[in-house]
Amino acid sequence: MSKILTIGVAGGTGSGKTTLTRSISAAFPEAVSVIHHDSYYKAHDDMPYSERCKLNYDHPDAFDTELLLEHLRQLKEGRAVAVPVYDYAVHNRSAETVTVLPARVIVVEGILIFWEKALCDQLDIKIYVDTDADVRILRRLVRDVKERGRSLDSVVGQYLTTVKPMHEEFVEPSKRRADIIIPEGGQNTVALEMVMERIRGYIGR
Amino acid sequence: MSKILTIGVAGGTGSGKTTLTRSISAAFPEAVSVIHHDSYYKAHDDMPYSERCKLNYDHPDAFDTELLLEHLRQLKEGRAVAVPVYDYAVHNRSAETVTVLPARVIVVEGILIFWEKALCDQLDIKIYVDTDADVRILRRLVRDVKERGRSLDSVVGQYLTTVKPMHEEFVEPSKRRADIIIPEGGQNTVALEMVMERIRGYIGR
Repeated sequence: MSKILTIGVAGGTGSGKTTLTRSISAAFPEAVSVIHHDSYYKAHDDMPYSERCKLNYDHPDAFDTELLLEHLRQLKEGRAVAVPVYDYAVHNRSAETVTVLPARVIVVEGILIFWEKALCDQLDIKIYVDTDADVRILRRLVRDVKERGRSLDSVVGQYLTTVKPMHEEFVEPSKRRADIIIPEGGQNTVALEMVMERIRGYIGR
Repeated sequence: MSKILTIGVAGGTGSGKTTLTRSISAAFPEAVSVIHHDSYYKAHDDMPYSERCKLNYDHPDAFDTELLLEHLRQLKEGRAVAVPVYDYAVHNRSAETVTVLPARVIVVEGILIFWEKALCDQLDIKIYVDTDADVRILRRLVRDVKERGRSLDSVVGQYLTTVKPMHEEFVEPSKRRADIIIPEGGQNTVALEMVMERIRGYIGR
């Protein structure tokens, strides 16, 4: 085990992995740094907006996983990294970056991270948050309609055409690589306490 | 949470739950006591041997779960219990008992323990060891043929007539009640370390 403990948190859309990640990060604000696969959506400066809208953002190829891997290596070496900021409004990487500092524990969060073998090899603990598909789509639907102002039809359409097929092709099979499976994610306080205790034991209490 | 931490370890035949339980118990010999659902197979003194052979030992009704619950209550109150010893050769409870002492952590192990709602209510942490059915039957087959001198045909016959249907009817659905799911059980060192750390945190290091 390296001097830095790396934890991967994967699971489908609406599974509760972000809640789990936030709880970990809030409990150990100084010891834990988080990087999100979502921040590493590929830059498409060469492509017009209309083309970028048509890309499949639920496919592993949508991500610049090489850059994430490079950043993870740098964090493990104790160096800060400049994580890209993706601009969802224009479907492209923005000019901004966010500095993520090295820490004793690095959490990598994302739907498709366990699909990437090279990334799995860099993770000491792989946690898959497993929540029923019906619960997951309801959470996503409510979030996208209420918080992001999207129409019901557009959320349903995107879910059925790309989110669901990509989940079944890439996300669900990647569960095989998990070390531990947590039903219901962020709401599961018993599992959360176990993860917390593992981190507490690592960083020293 | 009660003063005693109770951990349930469930999963199908050959899943690796016994290996996981043994690893926990070996790591904390003084802090952990284990009780096995298997020890609580019902006594059938009123039934001839030929009848007892025909009973379905993979069904929840085969167990005296009431007695296990009573023993768990006593252990939680700090009292030692006399756990029955089942005699597989005669398919009946023997006259012997084994004394199990109270401890800071009580592990309850068994295929069907999460099927029992009343038992689930008494468990602080419910761990389900999840292993593919083909791997599980191969482990059981090798164990029963090599270590217990049973014929290949009898193991296959029993598996297909009772073990598999009972697994699908009772064991698999009870996974829904788990707080945490561990793929591959005893061989999964990453998950094992997490469970260990949770216990270490509880008993104080």
